[in-house]
Amino acid sequence: MRLGRGVEWTLHCCSVLGALPPPLTISGSRLAEFHGVPAPYLVKQLQKLSQAGIVEATSGRRGGYRLARPAGEISLLDVVTALEGNDHAFRCTEIRQQGPTAVEARKYVRPCGIARAMWRAEDAWRAQLAAVTLADINDELDRTVDPKQMRKAIEWFKEEL
Amino acid sequence: MRLGRGVEWTLHCCSVLGALPPPLTISGSRLAEFHGVPAPYLVKQLQKLSQAGIVEATSGRRGGYRLARPAGEISLLDVVTALEGNDHAFRCTEIRQQGPTAVEARKYVRPCGIARAMWRAEDAWRAQLAAVTLADINDELDRTVDPKQMRKAIEWFKEEL
Repeated sequence: MRLGRGVEWTLHCCSVLGALPPPLTISGSRLAEFHGVPAPYLVKQLQKLSQAGIVEATSGRRGGYRLARPAGEISLLDVVTALEGNDHAFRCTEIRQQGPTAVEARKYVRPCGIARAMWRAEDAWRAQLAAVTLADINDELDRTVDPKQMRKAIEWFKEEL
Repeated sequence: MRLGRGVEWTLHCCSVLGALPPPLTISGSRLAEFHGVPAPYLVKQLQKLSQAGIVEATSGRRGGYRLARPAGEISLLDVVTALEGNDHAFRCTEIRQQGPTAVEARKYVRPCGIARAMWRAEDAWRAQLAAVTLADINDELDRTVDPKQMRKAIEWFKEEL
């Protein structure tokens, strides 16, 4: 079971965008350069976030990305779902309704207990991700990252802004 | 994010094996037939469970599979891990250490807050799966499946035993 690498990349981008004072924006290529990742793939992922209403893209010479709503109102689950969709990781194909001893479909009233147990676990995962916002991530970052490094990053972004 | 279809298949097989009085076994082809799934792929998955010490394969004309330990001592997590491995779904590639403002590796003392939040969610998922055993699944099955259907399934398996 694997989440795409876009999840890591865009979460880091969202963390950067969450620290950006409005109305500033940062271009996709600048975000890619900062994180040392290829811009074309990153931009595709950012477009998914844009479609999901998590980031906004502005156009023009100084166009770029910014968060579409406050960092405290965007959860990790919002970002993950925007990229990975909402499907269950565990797929129930109702194999209990297959084979020689299956009965009429109407007899299978509730989802299978195996599927329900697997989905309860996914609910727990989602609940955890829903409980953490980009603001939480950045609050912790502010408390834990070396101030010198933080300044270095801010200065680097300011070169373009 | 997707779990392989082998997870559904083998969980259903383990549920059947968990209801089997020792020392009986059921062959892989019979398990495949019962569930209406292709035997070669199912047997590959069952071999992974065997390597993980969840099922045991006996050889000989009446050889087949049985649980390697009591159903109450095998969790859904055991089965999922046997098939899918133990890797995190969220891969942290330490992109914070890339790019023009990265500092020396030794400065990154703790895992990144993003990775830790993502992994906490996976821990919640694992904890839920670890809390449910094959015996729990079968207890619920006994309470909820139509007794006629249950008898039909038992009779079908008895034909071979």
